[in-house]
Amino acid sequence: MATQVIVLNGGSSSGKSGIARCLQAILPDPWLAFGTDTLVQAMPMSVQTSAAGIAFAPDGEVVVGPEFRTLEATWIAGIAAMAQAGARIIVDEVFIGGAASQQRWKDALGPLQVLWVGVRCEATVATARELARGDRIAGMAASQAELVHRGIVYDLQVDTTHTEALECAQAIAARLR
Amino acid sequence: MATQVIVLNGGSSSGKSGIARCLQAILPDPWLAFGTDTLVQAMPMSVQTSAAGIAFAPDGEVVVGPEFRTLEATWIAGIAAMAQAGARIIVDEVFIGGAASQQRWKDALGPLQVLWVGVRCEATVATARELARGDRIAGMAASQAELVHRGIVYDLQVDTTHTEALECAQAIAARLR
Amino acid sequence: MATQVIVLNGGSSSGKSGIARCLQAILPDPWLAFGTDTLVQAMPMSVQTSAAGIAFAPDGEVVVGPEFRTLEATWIAGIAAMAQAGARIIVDEVFIGGAASQQRWKDALGPLQVLWVGVRCEATVATARELARGDRIAGMAASQAELVHRGIVYDLQVDTTHTEALECAQAIAARLR
Amino acid sequence: MATQVIVLNGGSSSGKSGIARCLQAILPDPWLAFGTDTLVQAMPMSVQTSAAGIAFAPDGEVVVGPEFRTLEATWIAGIAAMAQAGARIIVDEVFIGGAASQQRWKDALGPLQVLWVGVRCEATVATARELARGDRIAGMAASQAELVHRGIVYDLQVDTTHTEALECAQAIAARLR
Repeated sequence: MATQVIVLNGGSSSGKSGIARCLQAILPDPWLAFGTDTLVQAMPMSVQTSAAGIAFAPDGEVVVGPEFRTLEATWIAGIAAMAQAGARIIVDEVFIGGAASQQRWKDALGPLQVLWVGVRCEATVATARELARGDRIAGMAASQAELVHRGIVYDLQVDTTHTEALECAQAIAARLR
Repeated sequence: MATQVIVLNGGSSSGKSGIARCLQAILPDPWLAFGTDTLVQAMPMSVQTSAAGIAFAPDGEVVVGPEFRTLEATWIAGIAAMAQAGARIIVDEVFIGGAASQQRWKDALGPLQVLWVGVRCEATVATARELARGDRIAGMAASQAELVHRGIVYDLQVDTTHTEALECAQAIAARLR
Repeated sequence: MATQVIVLNGGSSSGKSGIARCLQAILPDPWLAFGTDTLVQAMPMSVQTSAAGIAFAPDGEVVVGPEFRTLEATWIAGIAAMAQAGARIIVDEVFIGGAASQQRWKDALGPLQVLWVGVRCEATVATARELARGDRIAGMAASQAELVHRGIVYDLQVDTTHTEALECAQAIAARLR
Repeated sequence: MATQVIVLNGGSSSGKSGIARCLQAILPDPWLAFGTDTLVQAMPMSVQTSAAGIAFAPDGEVVVGPEFRTLEATWIAGIAAMAQAGARIIVDEVFIGGAASQQRWKDALGPLQVLWVGVRCEATVATARELARGDRIAGMAASQAELVHRGIVYDLQVDTTHTEALECAQAIAARLR
């Protein structure tokens, strides 16, 4: 059965969004791409900046609270429903909760055909790219580089440290059913 | 039963997004806000700029093709699923297909409690605001101002021609169950 | 002699940028539009977020330090030089330093033909628009609404409280030499 | 005498802006960073999209007309004046006019201490990054990759094909007087 969902999991500034855009460009069918950013931007400003919602530690660590998790659960259910309705979907995620984060998606996606992809990037390089982007809180890249991969099971891993996003996308495309 | 979905329908530059942000700010519970823009940005660039996807006539008229409609159907199913999973959702829409557009949402939302809101703005004022924004294709506001309301049934209508977004949001909030 | 520089001074969310875009659209010659935002975005992130550069009080008040003022002085000199070289320029400013802010520009613009325009908006309405925009720090609009006009001498004042940006732009255009 | 202006010249998607942001982050003094984008965004929409202003060929080639050149000349004069007034400035440029483009800047900067830096990136890699960014017209990167360096004299060249922006910035910083 054909792959219905591609989940890209990686730390901040690891290059997930670029890979998602390259996948959309090279795959023959239209794929929808959604990220954690899509959800965050849909939330009220008050949730985007509160301890119950999303908060940032001084070292760049992201901490999400119960209000964020409640809204996220409905978001994941919605993405699963889109795929069940026939959409091909690329999800751009940051599993800051480790294996529990992946489990939440597994439970919601159920019998859908999913390709789990780890997007790795060495912490020093991700930190350098974070600085070059200039629109991310300093420290997020380093804080998440290893953390988000702990306990996650992948079908495939790519590494943007020395490989362009397009080449990573080609490797992922080659693994689709 | 409490309102679960607020659908704001209005032409380009009629002020829907501003009303949605004000609703999020004044309502005590957290509401997620999604718009047509959220869906368009999730699509591949090739669909965003093709006759089968989305195209723009020289006078600013927006024409959507079958590929857009197919993806949109999955998107609407996903939004409905989020609401069924417990999310409160504000949808910011442009019913360029008239009554058929509303029907697509009605079919998907099913038994959910929906508040249908028409967001009106006189064409000349919407056109002036389009010019002041500077990020929209000239002519969309005028082309859509009346068109998107034809055949639509509302619970409530607001008019931003002489009323601020916050005041419109307060009128909508007063009608929530 | 023809007007060479239009200075729009007003508080945050008073509608200056919209008026500038409308002026660019309706004036027959090409005018360049620069704002305080242009300068701020050109600064290093460290200056954008420090007490020596730019800082935000909890109530939305903006405080600028000596490092900001030093860079701003070179920026103003540059804008003046562009106008002396033949550019027609719209400057979108927030005179948080009152009469001293205007004097800095007067000294730099020297013999150039300048039209000084006050852009007013009632504090409650500016605050409502700040909320609807969703991308400004809450409180800036209220904090600046009256403050930035104290001690300033204008050739013309417009008020966006009940008047669209385009109509304000037309009033300004009618005053150009 | 200390370097007053750093000119980064390179094709679209070669990584100039990232290098500029890294330079701002690592240099002890505050440097202002301006790019061609700053100028383009200051222009009226009508100039941004006309043959007399800026036009895009179907293959991504950028063609600028006489109206653009007239406004650009005043912009360059303004940047030079900022540096003369004491600002340290990073200019992020695309010399699509070749040696004539560089000469325009040389004439305006006059006796100021300038470091001329070529930012190279192999066309295939720049094209891949253009795709990953998703916000640039396809073909610009390839069209400009070699073209913009023809006939230009540099103090230093960096290559982002296999080197991160931060490392390039460190090489540039090491050459400042």
